Amino acid sequence: MTVQSVAIIGLGLLGGSVGLAVKTHAPDVRTSGYDADADVRARAAERGLVDTVCADPAEAVREADLVILCVPVGAMAGAAEALAPTLPDHAIVSDVGSCKASVAASLRDVLPRHAIIPAHPVAGTEQSGPDAGFASLFENRWCILTPPDGVAEGKLANLSEFWESLGADVEIMTPEHHDLVLAVTSHLPHLIAYTIVGTASDLEDVTRSEVIKYSAGGFRDFTRIAASDPIMWRDVFLNNKDAVLEMLQVFSEDLTRLQRAIRRDDGDALFDLFSKTRAIRRSIIEQGQDDARPDFGRSDHDPE
Amino acid sequence: MTVQSVAIIGLGLLGGSVGLAVKTHAPDVRTSGYDADADVRARAAERGLVDTVCADPAEAVREADLVILCVPVGAMAGAAEALAPTLPDHAIVSDVGSCKASVAASLRDVLPRHAIIPAHPVAGTEQSGPDAGFASLFENRWCILTPPDGVAEGKLANLSEFWESLGADVEIMTPEHHDLVLAVTSHLPHLIAYTIVGTASDLEDVTRSEVIKYSAGGFRDFTRIAASDPIMWRDVFLNNKDAVLEMLQVFSEDLTRLQRAIRRDDGDALFDLFSKTRAIRRSIIEQGQDDARPDFGRSDHDPE
Repeated sequence: MTVQSVAIIGLGLLGGSVGLAVKTHAPDVRTSGYDADADVRARAAERGLVDTVCADPAEAVREADLVILCVPVGAMAGAAEALAPTLPDHAIVSDVGSCKASVAASLRDVLPRHAIIPAHPVAGTEQSGPDAGFASLFENRWCILTPPDGVAEGKLANLSEFWESLGADVEIMTPEHHDLVLAVTSHLPHLIAYTIVGTASDLEDVTRSEVIKYSAGGFRDFTRIAASDPIMWRDVFLNNKDAVLEMLQVFSEDLTRLQRAIRRDDGDALFDLFSKTRAIRRSIIEQGQDDARPDFGRSDHDPE
Repeated sequence: MTVQSVAIIGLGLLGGSVGLAVKTHAPDVRTSGYDADADVRARAAERGLVDTVCADPAEAVREADLVILCVPVGAMAGAAEALAPTLPDHAIVSDVGSCKASVAASLRDVLPRHAIIPAHPVAGTEQSGPDAGFASLFENRWCILTPPDGVAEGKLANLSEFWESLGADVEIMTPEHHDLVLAVTSHLPHLIAYTIVGTASDLEDVTRSEVIKYSAGGFRDFTRIAASDPIMWRDVFLNNKDAVLEMLQVFSEDLTRLQRAIRRDDGDALFDLFSKTRAIRRSIIEQGQDDARPDFGRSDHDPE
């Protein structure tokens, strides 16, 4: 692989998984890492998330061919500033953030002379922190790269090769289109999940203990993504505001239509929508983006 | 067990699971079953969902101590009418429907002289049909009974004993309170999931194939329950209209508040909500109502 040394800034779920995936899939590549939290650095060293854990970001990137910022979107600019002094001229700067236009703009401001290629591996779990990462997180998942106009072809190829070596499939698109697509497939679902879990926990006539007891009726599916990292998600909504508000508007109109169908006892309208949505899940399973077993294969079920 | 013979009307996911659970957990109890669909009856016989598959509901209930209606909520009255002529006087009539007040009323009209004890095991998967059932579906799940005033204590005890023998925990409440609780923990989540999957599949600027490709960002969690049986869910919304519309109203207000926080860049409001919702998931896991492993323990992840 062309990239020989990777610096990972931020050693939580994503950063830790990149480190472990390199160790498994590209063992010749050297990894160094930094996290602002000393406890996280200590735990990262214990788990061996990267070869070298540094107490200073400038130290971590000194010999890097590729720097991957794995911090919340709102912390990208600050993280880039801290490593600017020692960043090699040839190094590619990338990230794993969930919105791309705002990250591209802020990294460009801080590092105007470097090759910046923002990236977003569409993978994760509801867990966070240095114990959450694992080597197979990116396997059979898409990694979206949003290269700016005029970026060197060779560097784009190097970054693609890197992600493919970790098991991901690479796709290229503009940051603006990325932000619109992810507003639908990730940001709106998280917003809705956070809302409904909040709604259910604050009711007058139904207690919180009842909500928990009877959550297997469907509610529990929403609680998984509503348990995701609060800082990461706060930053996503602040940084992809326009696309999220646009999608939220469409969703609200659709919900109003369904509300009207219920109020008018329009069973046919309900049946039509409820039939259509099955096809989408079938495709997601066919394309290997979800588990086909009932209940996502949750362990407590044991179909023959 | 006091109940010695159970008739199961409707041999899909729920009916089939009751049959298989009896075979596993209470092998001395005899089971007979009926389904309106001849193909389902044939498959039920092949899988051995019940001891005797009957082509006539009146035949299936002739010797039953307990009849469990496992049909969509809108089909309960018709199913009860068909078995009325041969139903033994002492038989308990129950069901597994997701709303209870409307079922109680319609069964009372059709079978005014029988002991009717509506029930709702809060368990299921997104699958349906005679191949979907499995014996462990009710283990460690709640089964809510909504006995009418004046029902014989002995019969209520018999039905509780039956569900407990299948591994369920029994809870008693009024049909009205049941319908309100389930509107939050099950009906509203399904409505929201159906809506967002519909919204995502009908966009102009984002293609359906992009939605499927990048669904691992969160969207795929919603597609599971949006793949549930359309007839069953149409009937739920038509039969628990008031409670669902009331919960939908509260949800919409909460969503509007969150929308405003995003528009005003109110990061603190977002962070507060996103932190609060984690506690709910923790409780659900502690009480054994969901899988603690990341991603619900989906098979493609392999944390150390």
